[in-house]
Amino acid sequence: MLIVMSHAATKADVEGVVKTIEEMGYQARPMPGKQRTAVGLVGNDGKVDASRLLGLDGVLEVIHVSQPYKQVSREWKSENTIVRLPGWLSIGGDEVVVMAGPCAVETEAQIIESARAVRDAGAVILRGGAFKPRTSPYSFQGLGKKGLAFLKKAKEETGLLIVTEALDPEGVDAVAEVADIIQLGARNMQNFSLLKAAGRTRKPILLKRGIAATITELLLSAEYLLAEGNDQVILCERGIRGFDPATRNVFDLTAVPVVHRLSHLPIIADPSHGTGLRDKVTPMARAAVAAGADGLMIEVHPRPDKALSDGAQSLTPDQFGELMRQCRAIAEVIGRRVAEPAGAAR
Amino acid sequence: MLIVMSHAATKADVEGVVKTIEEMGYQARPMPGKQRTAVGLVGNDGKVDASRLLGLDGVLEVIHVSQPYKQVSREWKSENTIVRLPGWLSIGGDEVVVMAGPCAVETEAQIIESARAVRDAGAVILRGGAFKPRTSPYSFQGLGKKGLAFLKKAKEETGLLIVTEALDPEGVDAVAEVADIIQLGARNMQNFSLLKAAGRTRKPILLKRGIAATITELLLSAEYLLAEGNDQVILCERGIRGFDPATRNVFDLTAVPVVHRLSHLPIIADPSHGTGLRDKVTPMARAAVAAGADGLMIEVHPRPDKALSDGAQSLTPDQFGELMRQCRAIAEVIGRRVAEPAGAAR
Amino acid sequence: MLIVMSHAATKADVEGVVKTIEEMGYQARPMPGKQRTAVGLVGNDGKVDASRLLGLDGVLEVIHVSQPYKQVSREWKSENTIVRLPGWLSIGGDEVVVMAGPCAVETEAQIIESARAVRDAGAVILRGGAFKPRTSPYSFQGLGKKGLAFLKKAKEETGLLIVTEALDPEGVDAVAEVADIIQLGARNMQNFSLLKAAGRTRKPILLKRGIAATITELLLSAEYLLAEGNDQVILCERGIRGFDPATRNVFDLTAVPVVHRLSHLPIIADPSHGTGLRDKVTPMARAAVAAGADGLMIEVHPRPDKALSDGAQSLTPDQFGELMRQCRAIAEVIGRRVAEPAGAAR
Amino acid sequence: MLIVMSHAATKADVEGVVKTIEEMGYQARPMPGKQRTAVGLVGNDGKVDASRLLGLDGVLEVIHVSQPYKQVSREWKSENTIVRLPGWLSIGGDEVVVMAGPCAVETEAQIIESARAVRDAGAVILRGGAFKPRTSPYSFQGLGKKGLAFLKKAKEETGLLIVTEALDPEGVDAVAEVADIIQLGARNMQNFSLLKAAGRTRKPILLKRGIAATITELLLSAEYLLAEGNDQVILCERGIRGFDPATRNVFDLTAVPVVHRLSHLPIIADPSHGTGLRDKVTPMARAAVAAGADGLMIEVHPRPDKALSDGAQSLTPDQFGELMRQCRAIAEVIGRRVAEPAGAAR
Repeated sequence: MLIVMSHAATKADVEGVVKTIEEMGYQARPMPGKQRTAVGLVGNDGKVDASRLLGLDGVLEVIHVSQPYKQVSREWKSENTIVRLPGWLSIGGDEVVVMAGPCAVETEAQIIESARAVRDAGAVILRGGAFKPRTSPYSFQGLGKKGLAFLKKAKEETGLLIVTEALDPEGVDAVAEVADIIQLGARNMQNFSLLKAAGRTRKPILLKRGIAATITELLLSAEYLLAEGNDQVILCERGIRGFDPATRNVFDLTAVPVVHRLSHLPIIADPSHGTGLRDKVTPMARAAVAAGADGLMIEVHPRPDKALSDGAQSLTPDQFGELMRQCRAIAEVIGRRVAEPAGAAR
Repeated sequence: MLIVMSHAATKADVEGVVKTIEEMGYQARPMPGKQRTAVGLVGNDGKVDASRLLGLDGVLEVIHVSQPYKQVSREWKSENTIVRLPGWLSIGGDEVVVMAGPCAVETEAQIIESARAVRDAGAVILRGGAFKPRTSPYSFQGLGKKGLAFLKKAKEETGLLIVTEALDPEGVDAVAEVADIIQLGARNMQNFSLLKAAGRTRKPILLKRGIAATITELLLSAEYLLAEGNDQVILCERGIRGFDPATRNVFDLTAVPVVHRLSHLPIIADPSHGTGLRDKVTPMARAAVAAGADGLMIEVHPRPDKALSDGAQSLTPDQFGELMRQCRAIAEVIGRRVAEPAGAAR
Repeated sequence: MLIVMSHAATKADVEGVVKTIEEMGYQARPMPGKQRTAVGLVGNDGKVDASRLLGLDGVLEVIHVSQPYKQVSREWKSENTIVRLPGWLSIGGDEVVVMAGPCAVETEAQIIESARAVRDAGAVILRGGAFKPRTSPYSFQGLGKKGLAFLKKAKEETGLLIVTEALDPEGVDAVAEVADIIQLGARNMQNFSLLKAAGRTRKPILLKRGIAATITELLLSAEYLLAEGNDQVILCERGIRGFDPATRNVFDLTAVPVVHRLSHLPIIADPSHGTGLRDKVTPMARAAVAAGADGLMIEVHPRPDKALSDGAQSLTPDQFGELMRQCRAIAEVIGRRVAEPAGAAR
Repeated sequence: MLIVMSHAATKADVEGVVKTIEEMGYQARPMPGKQRTAVGLVGNDGKVDASRLLGLDGVLEVIHVSQPYKQVSREWKSENTIVRLPGWLSIGGDEVVVMAGPCAVETEAQIIESARAVRDAGAVILRGGAFKPRTSPYSFQGLGKKGLAFLKKAKEETGLLIVTEALDPEGVDAVAEVADIIQLGARNMQNFSLLKAAGRTRKPILLKRGIAATITELLLSAEYLLAEGNDQVILCERGIRGFDPATRNVFDLTAVPVVHRLSHLPIIADPSHGTGLRDKVTPMARAAVAAGADGLMIEVHPRPDKALSDGAQSLTPDQFGELMRQCRAIAEVIGRRVAEPAGAAR
C-alpha cells in the first residue's frame, strides 16, 4: 500500500502517517519525491483498512498495490479451477457448458416441456427459477417449494442437471436438495449472510455479477464463498447498468478475459439478461463463446409470448437450436467444444 | 400501457397484440397513426407484465403510462407521511432530523463517547453499525449482538434514539429490540426476503437507495414494506455509482425533490457515504438541507484516525458541531428547523 | 408523440395541452384513461420539440413514439447501405473489413513498417493518426500535415487504403486529400460544425460513438452527415464510459446488433480502445466478429513498447496475425468472410 | 509514477521496466516488496505517457502519483483565481454571481424582455444561445450572428453582461465581439481545436463539464486554455450522464468542493441542465449555493411554454425572483453574498 502525501504536507504530517502505520502493526517506508512524498506500507496482509490512513492530515490518496482478495486470485492458485458436476460434466476446462430453460418454473408441464426442448437442442443443465427476486412486490414471485419439486421431476424425466436460485440463507438448504448448482442472483451478490450460508454448503455455486459491481467486488463476493470452504464457484456476467435505454443492461463481455486473467475461477455469460432483447441473444451468445466464456446461460421458453416473466428475452426452442449450432462451430475455432448431453451423437 | 408497433408491423401483428391483451384480461385500444400504430392497454392495475407483450411480433416498444408502484405514490396519498418516533420526534414534517455517530460500534466506551459528542452538538438520533456489510470477508464485520447491547447502553446514557442496520431476516428481530429505526443498507435494497421481514415489524424503517438503483426501484422496494403493512418508511439518498474516481460515489441530491414529487414518504441524505471524503461532508450536508432533505445521516467519530472503518469520511465532533450550526441557519431560510434534543436551549 | 397527464391534472390542463399542440400545427387526440388522461399528437414529422409540452401544467411525461432520426433509419431504407471504397472493397456487405495500424503516425519509417506488417497479416486499410485529440495539452498531439504525407507514402508503398482522423472543420479538406475514409473521433461525435463539414465532402466517414453517447445520439450524429448529403457512413463502437477501473472503457458489443436493427448503416468495432488492454484485444475482436460487426479497427505497432501513445493496447504484428486467423474462421461460421488484400492467396 | 509488477514478474521483467524508464529520460527506483515489486519513476514532469510502460512484460498496473495537470492546480497557485469582468463584477471571490436568461435567443423582443426580467430579479449576466449545439440536425440551431446582434441590443438596454456559446474555432471571434464571457459547451469540452482558439482570446471563458467527463478531464481541458495564455477561466457543473431516466442528468454538486480543493479556478453550477426539470431547479440552485458554488446559471424564459428549446427546464421570471431571494439568504449563511446589479438597492 502506498500513501501519497499532498504537495503541502508538512514533516509532521509524514511523521503522523508513519506513526499510524506502525501502530497498525506494519512497517512504514517514506519515499521523498521531487513533487511530493509517498509512504510505503510494508507487511500488508490484505486486511489493512485504508480509510484510517486516508483521513490523516496531509494525505492525498491511498493506493492499493495488492489486490484485496486472496484465495480467488490467479496469483494464489495459477491453474484453472474445474468445477465438478455430477456425472461427466465439469466447468472451467475445455468444454463450454450451456444452461438453458425458462426464466421461472410455471407449471410441471411447462418445465418438463422446456427441459426436453433444451436437452434436444444440446443443453446439459436446466435453468428455471422457483424463487424469483422481483423488483415489484406485485410481480409473480415464483412457485417456491412447489417449483423445486417440478424441477426435480424435470431432472428425473430428462437427465439434465439443475441450476436454480436461492434467495435467502433459509432457502439455501431447500434449494441444495434439488439443485446441482445453487444460483446466487445479481441483486444478492453482496448479500453477505446469503454468501456465508451458500459457502457452507458443498454444492457448486453460480455467482452472478451485481448490476453495478466492479470485477474486484465480484471476486470479493466469491472470496466469501471460498473463505467458508467452498471453492466450487462459477462466476457469471449478466449485464451491468448503463445509461442507454436501447438495451436492458450493458453486456460487459470483456469481463470474461478480465476474470480469466485475475482469477482461476470459471466465468460464464448470460446474454438473455445481458441484453434483455430476444433478437440480441443469439449474436451475443456467439460473442460470449468467442470471447472465451466457460459456459452460457440462456432463457428458452416453449411459448415465450405466454411466459409469466421475461418473455421478451426468451428464445423459442428452434431459435435456441440454431444458437447451439453456431456456438459449437465457434467453440472449435478457439480449441474448445460445447459439452454434449450424455449419449448425444452429433 | 401503450404498445408501440414497428413501422413494418402487419395487420396480423396488431391483431396478435390485441388478442394477447384480451387474454390477459384487459381491453385493447388500437390507435392507427401516421407513421405507425400503437395499441393502448386499458384497465391496467399496475400488475401487467410488459415482457410478454414486448416479445410479440411487430412490437417495437412497450411504454408504461402508469407508475409500477402504488401505495408509496403521491397519487395514492397526497399528504406527506410523518414517521412518528418515540418521544417528541417525527420525520417528514417541518423538522430536519439529524442522525449521527460512528460507522461501526467498536467498544462500549467509543459508542458512549460518540453519543455524548453528537448529542451535545445537536443530533437527536445515534447511528452506529453492530452488523456491518463489508465488501471483503476479511474486513471488520461488526460486534454483532454485543454491539447492540452497547447501543442500548448509549441510549440509556444519552436519551438519543437509535438507528442501526439489520443484515438478514433473522437479524431483524434482534435489531428491532434495541433500535428505534431499523436501517436496511444500500447493498440490501433489493434483498426482498429482508424487506418482507422488515415490513412485518412495526418499527420505522430507514431504506437506503442501492448504489445503482433508479428512483423507481427505490420506491418499489419501499412498496414491499408498505405491502407488508409497514408504512413508517424513511428513504435515504447515499450516493450512486459513477465513473469518476474523484469521489467514492456520486451524491445524487436531486433525488430529494424527485422523491418528494413522486411519493409521500420522507427522504433524508447521507453525505458521508455520498461523498466518501471528510472535507466534502459539510458542504454537501448544507446542500442537502437546502435541497429539502427531511434529515441527515452523518458519520462522526471521536477520533476518526483510529476508526476501524470509514475513518476517512468521519467528522470530528467539532467539525460536526460547526455543520449543525450551518444547517440550522439554512433550514430556517426554507421555513424549516433542525430538530433539537429534548431540553436543548440554543 | 404521447403526452401523459398527471393523475391530478384538471380539465383545463388537458385543454391547455390540446391548445398548445394545435398552435404548433399538429392535431391533438385526448384519450381519457382509467388512471389518467393521455393526449396523442398526430402529424408529428420528427421535428416536434417536446420540451415545450413537458413544461405545461399537469403534464407528467412526454413519450416519443417515432424515432427522432429519419434518413439513417432502417424504416426509411430497409436494405443495408454498402459503403464503396476505392478498388474492390466495400463495407456493409458480406465481407468483414479489417483496419489496422498504429495509434499515431510517428515517423515515415514507423508507418511504412506498420503498413507492411498489417498488410502481410491481412488488413486492407491502414489506420494511423496524424492529428491526435489528446486529453492533456502536454501529450503528443500528432505530426499534423507531415503525418498525412507519411500516410500517403505508406499507401503508395503498400496499396492499403487509409483511414485517419480530422479534428476540426478546417482539417477536413487536408485529411480528405489523403484519406479514403475520414475518421471522426469519439470526443467529436457531437461537434456539429465538424459533422457538417464532413457531411459536405463526398468521402466515406467513419463516425465513432462518443464515450457516453446513446445509440440514438450516435444515429442522430450520423443523421447530420446524411442531412448534408453524404450517406457513405460507417459507425464504430469503441467503448463507453463505465464505473469499473478494471478496463479503460466498457466495450458495448451489443451496439452491433442494436444498430443493425435500427439502421441500414454498417457498424465496425474497435476493441483496442474498447478495452484498452493488449491481452483483451484478441478475444474481444473475435467476439465482435461473432456479434456481427462489419469490420474491425485494431491498433498494431511494430514495437508497442516504444509507441508514443497507446502502447499498452497495441498488438505486435505477430499477435495481429493470429487474431486475423481466428477472425477468419469465426466469420465463416456466420456466413461471412474477412476481406483480403488484392492478390492475397491464403 | 509507480509501476507495479505482477506477482509472477521475473527479474528480467523488472530490468526491462528500469531500462525503459531510463530510455525515457527518467530515473527508476525499484522497490522490492513482500508480495510484489514496484518501480518508482522519479523526475516525472507530468508528461510521461504511461501506456508505453503499461504494455511491458510483467507490469500489472501503472499508478500516477502526480496529477496530469499543472497550471490549473491548487498546488501550482494556492490563492483563488478571481476572474475580472467589465465593470465591478468578478467571479471567484466572496460574491455569488448569477447568470440567467433563455436557452436560445429567439427574437429581439424575447431577449430584451428576458434581460429586463432577470435583471429586475437580480441577475447580473444575461445568458442566451445564438449558436445552439443540437443533438438532432432538425432541431432549431439558433439565430447565429443575428442572435449575437440581439444580445448586443439587450446588453445596451439593460447593462447586463453577456455570456453566450461559441461552437467552433471560426465562431470564437464573432462571439468575442459581443460576449463578456465566451461559453464552451459540454459537448465541446474536449474539442481541442476550439479550446486552443478560445485560449488565444483574452476574454473570460466559461468551460462546461462534459456529460461524462471526470473532474481530472475537466481540469485538463481548462489546462488547454491556460497553456494558451488565458487564465480567466470559470468552470461549470451542469450534470453528468446517469442510469436513471427520472432526471435528464445527474447533477453532481460534489464537483464544487472537489474542484475547489484541486484547483484555484472558480466553479459555478447550472441546475437547469443539471436536472432538466423546472420544479427541481430552485431546490438544486439553493443546494449549489450551499455547497459553495461561485455562481449560478439559470434558464429563465418570459413564457416557457412558448420557448423554442428547453422550455421544460426554464423558470418563469416570478419563479426566478423567488429563487434569488432564497439564494441570497443561503449565501449569507456561509459568509458570501449574491452579486447585485449596479445601483440595486435591496
